[in-house]
Amino acid sequence: MARIENLSARLFNVPLAEVLVDAKHGDHTFFQLVTVTVRTDDGAEGVGYTYTGGKGGHAILAMIQHDLAPFLVGKDSDHIEDLYDAMQWHVHYVARGGIASFAISAVDIALWDQRGKRTGAPLWQMAGGTADRCKAYAGGIDLNFSLNKLLHQTEGYLSRGFNGVKIKVGQPDLADDLDRAKAVRQMLGPDRFFMVDANYSMTVDQAITAAKGFAEHDILWFEEPTIPDDYKGYGRIADATGVPLAMGENLHTIHEFEYAFDDAKLSFIQPDASNCGGITGWLRVAALSAKHNIPVCSHGMQELHVSLVSAQPNAGWLEVHSFPIDQYTTRPLVVENCLAVAPNTPGIGVEFDWDKLNAEHMEVPA
Amino acid sequence: MARIENLSARLFNVPLAEVLVDAKHGDHTFFQLVTVTVRTDDGAEGVGYTYTGGKGGHAILAMIQHDLAPFLVGKDSDHIEDLYDAMQWHVHYVARGGIASFAISAVDIALWDQRGKRTGAPLWQMAGGTADRCKAYAGGIDLNFSLNKLLHQTEGYLSRGFNGVKIKVGQPDLADDLDRAKAVRQMLGPDRFFMVDANYSMTVDQAITAAKGFAEHDILWFEEPTIPDDYKGYGRIADATGVPLAMGENLHTIHEFEYAFDDAKLSFIQPDASNCGGITGWLRVAALSAKHNIPVCSHGMQELHVSLVSAQPNAGWLEVHSFPIDQYTTRPLVVENCLAVAPNTPGIGVEFDWDKLNAEHMEVPA
Repeated sequence: MARIENLSARLFNVPLAEVLVDAKHGDHTFFQLVTVTVRTDDGAEGVGYTYTGGKGGHAILAMIQHDLAPFLVGKDSDHIEDLYDAMQWHVHYVARGGIASFAISAVDIALWDQRGKRTGAPLWQMAGGTADRCKAYAGGIDLNFSLNKLLHQTEGYLSRGFNGVKIKVGQPDLADDLDRAKAVRQMLGPDRFFMVDANYSMTVDQAITAAKGFAEHDILWFEEPTIPDDYKGYGRIADATGVPLAMGENLHTIHEFEYAFDDAKLSFIQPDASNCGGITGWLRVAALSAKHNIPVCSHGMQELHVSLVSAQPNAGWLEVHSFPIDQYTTRPLVVENCLAVAPNTPGIGVEFDWDKLNAEHMEVPA
Repeated sequence: MARIENLSARLFNVPLAEVLVDAKHGDHTFFQLVTVTVRTDDGAEGVGYTYTGGKGGHAILAMIQHDLAPFLVGKDSDHIEDLYDAMQWHVHYVARGGIASFAISAVDIALWDQRGKRTGAPLWQMAGGTADRCKAYAGGIDLNFSLNKLLHQTEGYLSRGFNGVKIKVGQPDLADDLDRAKAVRQMLGPDRFFMVDANYSMTVDQAITAAKGFAEHDILWFEEPTIPDDYKGYGRIADATGVPLAMGENLHTIHEFEYAFDDAKLSFIQPDASNCGGITGWLRVAALSAKHNIPVCSHGMQELHVSLVSAQPNAGWLEVHSFPIDQYTTRPLVVENCLAVAPNTPGIGVEFDWDKLNAEHMEVPA
């Protein structure tokens, strides 16, 4: 038993090296990183975090500071699952997804970090222990890239050892999407894996047409063809095209994942521990995906998800996205023989370079 | 055309006269009021607001100040529906319900207020104009009240002219709920209307048993018997008991209402403009409820909802809840001949007594 003595949070606006664009979120010039540090009365400390594409960070920080921290101080840090459920009920009226999911995620990850540091266990062991490595692909945020730049990026991914690449789609003219898909597939050759991601920019009918076009370029999956809320629409796309579908980054509660498993006819599920309830929330989705016989993948946050995905018996693919988080941690993602390797250090295996975060980036005062 | 020049927000913790308790939200000792003031370049001003049971207020304030206000300044205030959709997309990655729904609600209501003040139209006319008054019932937050106190409260409601009363249920022992329901029904007599509200504290099976018990006391509806996420569970309760069901206060997106209309077999829908997207969001739910031939009711915020419910061709019942908002506005709710009467002043018809808010209550600095 170790009581939570202090729980503090900080917000950083982390600049991107270049403007990144997808079909629905506009231009990204920075991302927001919200860190949580939890300290227990036995001297243990854990760090968790979440991130956004540039909006909502202040609200996440406010919920952690004003609603979650006062609620958690004094409670036993060992019972993470109970604390997770208690946090969900504590803020339920203003929660059920949205900002609360991000805030709870950051806190939950900090609790797992202190658990691992206390027990000496690395996350891949705590989270299931099936393996310490998993398939990984490079996911570009590249809708605004010229074809030349897109191919240059793809070359870079291959030279870094990836055998799977995903590009953004959702150009005003579908023909342009198909041209880009064709060119990338040609560069990849027939044996590597290729995915496309529309960031829910299409109607169901548009997506059916697009899926048939992308199928000619042998895609492993078509990600978020339409809005995440239209589970039955996903089912219609799957039925009409037979193209494997993937989604999950915009689902924030276990109930939303249940609707997806029931109605969306997905081939892959992509929960994000930074917004679906942290490690506790992610593992609950993984258990549900195993029950539904669907490989569990991930969205973003590869430095943490590498441990979670590797640990599952039904491990799918780890997304390695282009936010430059590796510049602010002490262990850049390791990829060996096309597999991402989980850190073997106690805790979540993600240590921030605080000097670099503090020195180079604006910290927003509470 | 009038451009938004300034949009500011404030947070107040408003104390309750006594501790109010329901089955799932614990003890309420205060509620949070978040106000939004929008000023346009023609000198018009509008005030909107949202509220919570005591958590999330800081996060709502932060999202308005950091994400919504900078996005809206400079935009044309006339196109409220477009602004509504644009706000939803602007914060989509951290939204789809939760805190964002409360924040957008407060802003949207302010925009409608300035529209009404500019055009001279009261809200009941802007929102449909069917009537300026509607059925209203008193909704107690009284799970912790002794039976004597519950009956005393009921007497008070009757003396204030209400012909409909709702009590909280969800006691540890169902027999106690049934005893309380029986006593309240006896006091009401056979001709008044009686509802019960479990605040989603029961499993589906528990709710089926309870519904059959409550049915003996001639209830108009059984509200939130189980978690709002389990739409199909609501359907099972309706099928198994034939008891009319109501819900809506915990649904925050139009998609969640669509699932409810499709699967929950509701007899009444209860959207809350303070958390389902303001007046724009509420009217979209009302349109959907008309399509599904279900009376549209409301949750909380009676001082505003009186105009929205009255204006609908499929108007249901207005909930008059026990948060003491009337003490902080210039027009306490008017009830005549059992009907609540909408204000006839331009705008939303809710004017805060700022001196009272400022003088008596803690304002939280940004």
